[in-house]
Order: sequence, then structure tokens, then C-alpha cells
Amino acid sequence: MSRTVRILETFDQGTRDLSLTQITHRAGMSGSSAYRLVGEMAALGLLEKLPNRRYRIGLRLWELANRTPGALGLREVAMPHLQDVQAIIRQHTQLGILRGDQVLYLERLSSHEPVINITVVGGTLPLHATSSGLILLAHSDPETVDRILGSQLSDFAMAPRPSPNAMRKILAEVRRDGYALTKGYIHRDASAVAVPIMGPFGGAVASLSVVVPTEGIMLESLLNVLRPAAQKIAIGMRSAYFGETS
Amino acid sequence: MSRTVRILETFDQGTRDLSLTQITHRAGMSGSSAYRLVGEMAALGLLEKLPNRRYRIGLRLWELANRTPGALGLREVAMPHLQDVQAIIRQHTQLGILRGDQVLYLERLSSHEPVINITVVGGTLPLHATSSGLILLAHSDPETVDRILGSQLSDFAMAPRPSPNAMRKILAEVRRDGYALTKGYIHRDASAVAVPIMGPFGGAVASLSVVVPTEGIMLESLLNVLRPAAQKIAIGMRSAYFGETS
Repeated sequence: MSRTVRILETFDQGTRDLSLTQITHRAGMSGSSAYRLVGEMAALGLLEKLPNRRYRIGLRLWELANRTPGALGLREVAMPHLQDVQAIIRQHTQLGILRGDQVLYLERLSSHEPVINITVVGGTLPLHATSSGLILLAHSDPETVDRILGSQLSDFAMAPRPSPNAMRKILAEVRRDGYALTKGYIHRDASAVAVPIMGPFGGAVASLSVVVPTEGIMLESLLNVLRPAAQKIAIGMRSAYFGETS
Repeated sequence: MSRTVRILETFDQGTRDLSLTQITHRAGMSGSSAYRLVGEMAALGLLEKLPNRRYRIGLRLWELANRTPGALGLREVAMPHLQDVQAIIRQHTQLGILRGDQVLYLERLSSHEPVINITVVGGTLPLHATSSGLILLAHSDPETVDRILGSQLSDFAMAPRPSPNAMRKILAEVRRDGYALTKGYIHRDASAVAVPIMGPFGGAVASLSVVVPTEGIMLESLLNVLRPAAQKIAIGMRSAYFGETS
């Protein structure tokens, strides 16, 4: 692996900044080569040196990264619709995609005084612990489902860990009903509802979800907002890819 | 410079994808080492190989990049306020910061049928050609202003290129009035208004701007929405950094 990447990877999720010693240790590199490489990366803006001499990921990397038209093209198409959903529901509105065994959140819009929610943009969460994850898993190919159900589901917050057979039943229901509801899986006070954003060749390319207070949750009202928005995003994606104007 | 970075840098703004030959040529590397490194980077998800065998920046880079708490912390604090502005003005609402001699846009919210606007998230534009840029330049330290006015302003769309003295007068007005207005600088039909987001130590840490149709532009109404939002973002930033709850 490129040593630049090894250094970037030392900043795992939730790590805000690291000392040079921590970077050296985590990257498993010699002190002198870590020192040289971190200096080069800081000069390029890939790392940023803080006044306390610790390092964090630099903004230049974000700038480069935004040049990918892949999933960020989806985000671009979806944004106005996410805003519409957020304007009505006035809680967290999220866009997620499948990434390995996790949901990767491409966007999160939140109101001023939202219910508790641990999702961060660019962050990932386990599939079985989130409504987005259940949607994405329910629409995954059989090999992916087998692989994920074949390994032990991680112990995450208050998320249930059904047996593989029970999970297959849940996924079949999610597919049939067209939504996933997770009540208090991560925090008792918060629940989430997700619907699939269908791709042009079938299957879900992404999930659209909201995180709302568990108390007084009105599933039908939420679905009445989420479903048309997901459909509009799917149509927008289709015309972005194929030039259709329908 | 790290060769990983040299390869990433071949994807300049506006480049969606490149062939292996183009990457090799732009990076000025030998074919065999480019081939090996591009393969490694694709395996790590830093690059993504398309079905037509061209490459684009991979989503993994974006995931890593989102771990910087720097300017993206500002984006996080600002988002609900950007949404408020966008809900009222219903045109493009943007958050920009100074990055070298350019404005870097951290966020852009847009309505469904917005006026023409070339800003992209993660993209940059010249300071003198944008309302955000004029705001950021007007609040820059004298050395930065000297440096930028000392070099030839780039020829960009229909943006005027005042002499250094005329520019200094414009910047003084922008500081005095607390806003910058650029009418049809980039496209005749679109105009922009920006206000500063003031930092805890004085100076502008960012700009909040809207791009609206030139025809029928109502400056006072726009400022009445922008100014309180910019102030709320500044307060939010202060409490995020210092733990103040005011």
C-alpha cells in the first residue's frame, strides 16, 4: 500500500487529530520516514498541522475528493429532494449507499433542534443497525446477503442481532413493504425510516431516510413524504445518466 | 511530492475521468510505475475503474477527506442556517472560504429550477469574479490583499478587472457596507450577494452568498435574510470552539 495512504488511514472514523508519534505508531513506519512524509503531506495540504503540533486531515484532500462524479453525482441530484423532505419533516434527512458491510452516509440535513443522531457525512454504520442498512441489504444481490449474514453481526448500541433465518424474513418484509423501520436501535429516543432509491436496472442504488423522535412517530405520514421524494431522485438519476427528460 | 498525490492531482477541476495513458502523461511518470500505482490506488478505492477502462477519483478518498474537522466543522454548523436562507430565497445558497487566491465553496444548496450558476461544491473561483471572493478579500490581511492586487487579475467570464487602486476602493466599500454585490459577472442573467461570517478574533472566516436572477433583484430583502443567518453561524462557530452557549 502507498505510504501516503497508510498515513491517511491512520485517521480512522472518530479520530480528529493525531500526534506525529501516534501517526508513526499507527502506520507502522519508522520515525524518520513518517516525519518526512507527514511534512510533505502537510506542505501539500493533505494534512494540516495544528497550533498544538498535532495533525489532522487537510482540506486539500476534501477538495480533490469532491472531483469524483460517482456517488457525489447522486448527492447532487438528490439534494433538492432531500431539502424538500427536510422542510416538511424538520428532522434529520439522510442519503446512504452500500459500502462493503456498512452504510456510507453521503449527506445529512438537520434542523436546529433535532433528535439525537450519530450519523455523520462521510461516516459509516453497520447495516443491521440502521434503517438505511436494512433497505440496502434487502435489495442486495444474494452473494452479498449470504456474506453478511454468514459473519457474526456486530454488537452495536441497542440494535437487535437476529439469526440469519430471522434476518432473511425481515429483509423479505422490507422488500415487500418498501420501507425499513428501526425503532430505538441506536438510541431509545430516536427511530428511523428508510425507503429505497431504485436504480435504472432494478435494485436500490441508495436509501433515503429520516431520523425522528420515537415518541409519536407517524409512519404513514413519513412514508407519504419519503416515497415520492425517492421516486423523483430515481427519475433524476435516470435522466442524469441516460439523458431522459421524463 | 508523493507519487500517489501526483496521480490524484492529474484530476484537475472539471476532469471527470482519465485514461491510464492520460494519467501517465499528466503525472510525468513512466508507464510501468503509473500502471502499478494506479492499480494499487484502484484496489484501495482511491481511484475507481469505469467499465470503459477509464479512471475517476474514488469514493474512498471522499470518505477519508470527510474526517477533517476543520472547514467541514464550519459547514456542519452553517448547514441549518443555509437551509433557512435557501427556504426563503429559493435560489442558490453558498458557503465559501478563502483558499490561496480563490474562493473554495464548501456547500451549495439549490432549488429545483434555479438560475444559472457555475459553482460546484469543492470547486474554486477567482476572488475578483465572485461576491464571496470580494467579501473574503475585503476582510483579508493587508499582505494577502497586496499579493493578490500585485498580480494580474485573471480574465474570467464578464468579471471586471479594476486597477489595484480602484479595487482597494471597492474593497473599502464592501467592508463599510457589509456586503458585496456582483451583477452579471459570470453570466448576465445571474447576480450574487455575499455577506461575511465573522470569526471570533475579527475578520471573516467565510462568506455566505446567494446567486439570484439579475432581473428584479431586491438587494435589501436579500440582505435582511443573509445578515441574521451569517450572524447566527458566527455565534454557532463561537460556541463550537469555545463552548459558549450564548
